[in-house]
Amino acid sequence: MKRPLILVTNDDSIISPGIRTLIEVMKTIGEVVVVAPDSPQSAMGHAITINSTLHLDKVKLDAALEHEYSCSGTPVDCVKIAVHEILKRKPDLCVSGINHGSNSSINVIYSGTMSAAVEAGIEGIPAIGFSHVDYSWDTDFEPVKEYVRKISLGVLENGLPEGVILNVNFPKANKEPIKGIKICRQAKAMWKEKFDKRINPQGKEYYWLTGEFVNQDKGQDTDEYALEKGYISIVPVQFDLTAHHAIQTLNNWNL
Amino acid sequence: MKRPLILVTNDDSIISPGIRTLIEVMKTIGEVVVVAPDSPQSAMGHAITINSTLHLDKVKLDAALEHEYSCSGTPVDCVKIAVHEILKRKPDLCVSGINHGSNSSINVIYSGTMSAAVEAGIEGIPAIGFSHVDYSWDTDFEPVKEYVRKISLGVLENGLPEGVILNVNFPKANKEPIKGIKICRQAKAMWKEKFDKRINPQGKEYYWLTGEFVNQDKGQDTDEYALEKGYISIVPVQFDLTAHHAIQTLNNWNL
Repeated sequence: MKRPLILVTNDDSIISPGIRTLIEVMKTIGEVVVVAPDSPQSAMGHAITINSTLHLDKVKLDAALEHEYSCSGTPVDCVKIAVHEILKRKPDLCVSGINHGSNSSINVIYSGTMSAAVEAGIEGIPAIGFSHVDYSWDTDFEPVKEYVRKISLGVLENGLPEGVILNVNFPKANKEPIKGIKICRQAKAMWKEKFDKRINPQGKEYYWLTGEFVNQDKGQDTDEYALEKGYISIVPVQFDLTAHHAIQTLNNWNL
Repeated sequence: MKRPLILVTNDDSIISPGIRTLIEVMKTIGEVVVVAPDSPQSAMGHAITINSTLHLDKVKLDAALEHEYSCSGTPVDCVKIAVHEILKRKPDLCVSGINHGSNSSINVIYSGTMSAAVEAGIEGIPAIGFSHVDYSWDTDFEPVKEYVRKISLGVLENGLPEGVILNVNFPKANKEPIKGIKICRQAKAMWKEKFDKRINPQGKEYYWLTGEFVNQDKGQDTDEYALEKGYISIVPVQFDLTAHHAIQTLNNWNL
């Protein structure tokens, strides 16, 4: 069998330890092309660059890779330019991450890592976003490597249902080894914002966005629950946002 | 009954004709607070500002409004700062738009207008995103005003199912009046990208992202179909991205 073509991207930038780990694992599976942001793009959601221009630089951070590019755009831009400008054929897999920080629950919606994977999904490419609950750049990725490989091989072997992308999160490391993998639903949770108001040297007010994560979901089938118990969570994610169950309700309004 | 408190935002910036129209209609319904971007934020998706700071300026574009603010952040930032810094109580309704350009089909995922509405939905506020297929700033909003009012009153009266936001799109104007309203699902469509490569004065390559919208969906229950036929489309949108139907498939992989 031909070695699969794998597109690797992320949102923490091309130099982050998370993407370097992902590249290392992907090299054991197939031919790797990297197109990733030249600077941190966390929390960019599904933003794309339409009011300004994009730059693309061929880089050589990994001597074994022939195609590695840093891009001035968002994670979604990286996927678009990779697919339409760089890659000669549609890749067999797109992996995004490993993100430094959780993308479980509602975080999926703010996440540049997951939006890159979703964009690949829209393009018809089997795609996985990987994130580690620990946001430190010193995170030990050694214990998760075998799972990154296993899940990626699973997707290459089985394919994914149409319009579905995987959101994989790794639990915080503790003394015990990872307990295994749970297929989950997105927990119902949100950020309770707090704005840290400050005064700049010119006397003008400005704000830092901060917040506290609040999990309102008591379910035991959620990603938050799995992670808390020491499991890896996998949530199948879709980009058909239609709330199909609400269509009949709205029809009853007789608008 | 007390007049409802209505938060108005958008992504085209606080001075766009679309938001000024929306404000005009909302003033006939309730007490209006405006918090909108100080510059265009189209295609920002669900991006939030975490690596830099936010500024907020009290402005007076409408003499009749007491609370109108321009914000340096994304549409989602605007909703967060409105809810947590400006508003004394949770608003009864959040409306976003009227966007200059369609947010039907897959555009919902890139749209700052819709992301602002979704963010309000996450906060538990009934929310509607309004968009006009015509992206010109000269668009005649006169014919859509009565519908903006009708749909907003419908939401205030009936409430929305939990976790559901409305994505409303107005069809291109033609000689005939708008035919009515259709409750729809999101059409399966995508953008086929083309990167316009150019050379800057220093001899370095750069790119403009362009693309062609491709509707692959032959269904007659989609937003694209309704709009094409001269109807207003309303798609109920959710932020639980879980592809619940795929959970069993993935469990069968025995990961």
